Amino acid sequence: MLKIVKIGGNIVDNPEKLDEFLADFASVEGDKILVHGGGKVATTISKALGIETTMIEGRRVTDAETLKVVTMVYAGVINKTIVAKLSTMCSKVIGVCGADGGVILSKKRAANPIDYGFVGDPVSVNTELLGELTGKGYTVVVAPITLDKQAGTLLNTNADTIASTLAVAMAQSGVETELIYCFEKRGVMRNIDDEASLIERITPEYAEQLKSEGIIADGMIPKIDNAVSAINKGVSGVVICAAENIAKEGYGGTTITL
Amino acid sequence: MLKIVKIGGNIVDNPEKLDEFLADFASVEGDKILVHGGGKVATTISKALGIETTMIEGRRVTDAETLKVVTMVYAGVINKTIVAKLSTMCSKVIGVCGADGGVILSKKRAANPIDYGFVGDPVSVNTELLGELTGKGYTVVVAPITLDKQAGTLLNTNADTIASTLAVAMAQSGVETELIYCFEKRGVMRNIDDEASLIERITPEYAEQLKSEGIIADGMIPKIDNAVSAINKGVSGVVICAAENIAKEGYGGTTITL
Repeated sequence: MLKIVKIGGNIVDNPEKLDEFLADFASVEGDKILVHGGGKVATTISKALGIETTMIEGRRVTDAETLKVVTMVYAGVINKTIVAKLSTMCSKVIGVCGADGGVILSKKRAANPIDYGFVGDPVSVNTELLGELTGKGYTVVVAPITLDKQAGTLLNTNADTIASTLAVAMAQSGVETELIYCFEKRGVMRNIDDEASLIERITPEYAEQLKSEGIIADGMIPKIDNAVSAINKGVSGVVICAAENIAKEGYGGTTITL
Repeated sequence: MLKIVKIGGNIVDNPEKLDEFLADFASVEGDKILVHGGGKVATTISKALGIETTMIEGRRVTDAETLKVVTMVYAGVINKTIVAKLSTMCSKVIGVCGADGGVILSKKRAANPIDYGFVGDPVSVNTELLGELTGKGYTVVVAPITLDKQAGTLLNTNADTIASTLAVAMAQSGVETELIYCFEKRGVMRNIDDEASLIERITPEYAEQLKSEGIIADGMIPKIDNAVSAINKGVSGVVICAAENIAKEGYGGTTITL
């Protein structure tokens, strides 16, 4: 079972949390791909360089200068720092961004209705290269920068989207794949304030029921919709769990399966 | 014949020169590894972030903050921009730094007599991974950041040293290898002001003669000594040429061979 794990900026931004997570992640057995988000460093660097950060609906607008900064930060210091730390615990680790080996090729998003600038949506995955690397025992660490190959342009891409795109592509190439989103909460809960109300397993039908009951609401709706879409496309299971539970049986979280 | 080509900051810093070079480099046939230096961007970014750049004998002192900047710039924006540009011309391109797959592991340089900080000297090369990638037709683009695997620390490493270390390791692994240093001049000239006085071929014995005649002098001495050392360790030939001649027969430069 190939495990594709996504961590967000809240872990990347916190060196202690990151160290703890990486130690746990290193202890997880089997083939692994780690997708990381960006975090606040890009905003700090942009500010220092006098580049204004514009966010629309929580997403970063990426002009040419911002693209340089996110490439530096995501594909540079964050990706290579994770590779360096993991290398002390795993014998084989390689960091890539989507441009490397055409691992994730993308297309610039249309400027209409909102012009996000140099932002791209994945169009293809080099499953052959990823399969060869994981097959040889490499843990692959993926930064959320992709490539429009025809234009020769790097593009900023949402890390959640990269993780699900990789999972679907690997599953469709014939590799049994599990997708694990590390999240601030333990998973989906009947009562958001009560960790004991965690729902351990959600099927597509149950997801519809939970939505109609209002238990899956707001920001959780697109997450669950994406998870259901991934399992419908062949991913064995999608897990939403807390980063600190990555090494636990069943990840102490919610699994979305058929 | 595997060709390992090194370009310096003067090309990396100049987008037009870089584009021209990459178009020529893409047209060179056979297995290829491109090692790039850093250039002035790291100094610009450091300045903007309020990090003081200290140079001793022309080499950058790398404190913890500077290490982050050079990792961002070398392994991030420069490496990935080259990968993106080359990908429009070569079907398979992958960018790595020395930490990726343990391609170049290193050891922190002793703080005595000069403390350069997070600077490392190569101790091993993952020739298996490089051989597999080049064997599958990937052009590998290498950023001059290496890894102390035990400490989990990235280290800044001289790009010339990386290029010769890779060439010697690949040659010793049984791959016929040529090392090509792109340089501001056409090569070694009898009269530095006369391009027509280019010396096309230098053997180790001839190098000694040229040194005793004072024709090889100053900064050229360590370059030629390193080249002679590389060919004595199995590299087929070391070329010193102008970047704009990379696609020309014999590179229009000086070749050091046995």
